Amino acid sequence: MLRREDFLSGPVSVTAYDWVPELAQGYVRDLRLRWALEEAGFAYDAALLPHAERASSKNLARQPFGQVPAMQVGDLTMFESGACAWRIAEASKALLPEDTADWQACFSWFFAALDSLGQPIDLCGYLRFFADDREAAAKIEPQARDFLRLRLSRFADALGDRPFLVAGRFSIADLMTSVVLRNVETTGDLDAFPTLAAYVRRHTARPAFQRALEAQMRPFRENASKYTAAG
Amino acid sequence: MLRREDFLSGPVSVTAYDWVPELAQGYVRDLRLRWALEEAGFAYDAALLPHAERASSKNLARQPFGQVPAMQVGDLTMFESGACAWRIAEASKALLPEDTADWQACFSWFFAALDSLGQPIDLCGYLRFFADDREAAAKIEPQARDFLRLRLSRFADALGDRPFLVAGRFSIADLMTSVVLRNVETTGDLDAFPTLAAYVRRHTARPAFQRALEAQMRPFRENASKYTAAG
Repeated sequence: MLRREDFLSGPVSVTAYDWVPELAQGYVRDLRLRWALEEAGFAYDAALLPHAERASSKNLARQPFGQVPAMQVGDLTMFESGACAWRIAEASKALLPEDTADWQACFSWFFAALDSLGQPIDLCGYLRFFADDREAAAKIEPQARDFLRLRLSRFADALGDRPFLVAGRFSIADLMTSVVLRNVETTGDLDAFPTLAAYVRRHTARPAFQRALEAQMRPFRENASKYTAAG
Repeated sequence: MLRREDFLSGPVSVTAYDWVPELAQGYVRDLRLRWALEEAGFAYDAALLPHAERASSKNLARQPFGQVPAMQVGDLTMFESGACAWRIAEASKALLPEDTADWQACFSWFFAALDSLGQPIDLCGYLRFFADDREAAAKIEPQARDFLRLRLSRFADALGDRPFLVAGRFSIADLMTSVVLRNVETTGDLDAFPTLAAYVRRHTARPAFQRALEAQMRPFRENASKYTAAG
């Protein structure tokens, strides 16, 4: 297992795009790792990859689906934002409670963010932003959003008015849940759930999140002219 | 962290439905835990729940989204099939290699099954089986299946003709990937990927899988008359 010393002795690097279309800016999944690394106080470098080269053999060798992020810690390469974020959390006292039951609860909620919440959020995102047949997508969307609202409603019931999911402190479970819920905050799907909207706002106001977001956005600004003034 | 002794001293129980509609039979997610527990050689009981009572306060207390499975090991309750299956694997030598790099590779592939493969599979499944507006769903499906085929194609490239994902041996990564890919085997989406179809067939032929499947199916058969002869 990766230990705190592995991250401290490094080098630690995270793959990220040098630019993405505006819709995706601030939402690419390297953000999850950057935020976790910032909370943990682990230094890292971003290995920037031209968006058009995501399916290059070099990137496929470290991320088999031709996506970002992959993470390198010393000699070890990992992929999948969920896997990498959990490893960062395990190596840091900042992101996980010590008590076994609390720690297991974080593990359950971490998967819940990616799966039970992530699934209807991905579905709604696909219909809203990616489906080319806009008319057909608009007909499917209300049912998909009902499905999402049911999951959000159950989550809101479980959270109640607690500021954190587990043990009264910020953890990797709050980090991943906030990142995932943030994908629907902008579409208005959190409007009916004021405690969830407040939960996301509170956690994304953390200085570590703001540093992570700025670190993802900076190259997009710097490289914008290369991509938008094409031809 | 849960240890081998925790599972051996038990009791271990997994929530499951007493019956589900035919479409879902053999595909409910407690199957993932049952299979992992069978591979590990850990005895467990199924805590059967009437399908209509999945949103009861009792079930919501152990599974906040009103689903199955939740898992109890001694005094500890967990939920999310991903979280539970990984914990079973960690407590068993049968499902994870010892080498650190191999172990991390299993962790990455485990999340890849749930997320990078699971996302387009869930999307296609929703459009095919759950969207009420069949005409609109049929218009969206071809693009969603292209998205799925691209992910499957990348995965097939990464797997090559190896029988296992990591370290030349069966692991929790193969278990979760097989369960996830099995959801598209029946719809024909694996037909273009003979190595993936063979991968799923090979792993689901394992005696532990067959025992797990039968254990999920048995109560569905026993309780069928209660549900289908209603009124």
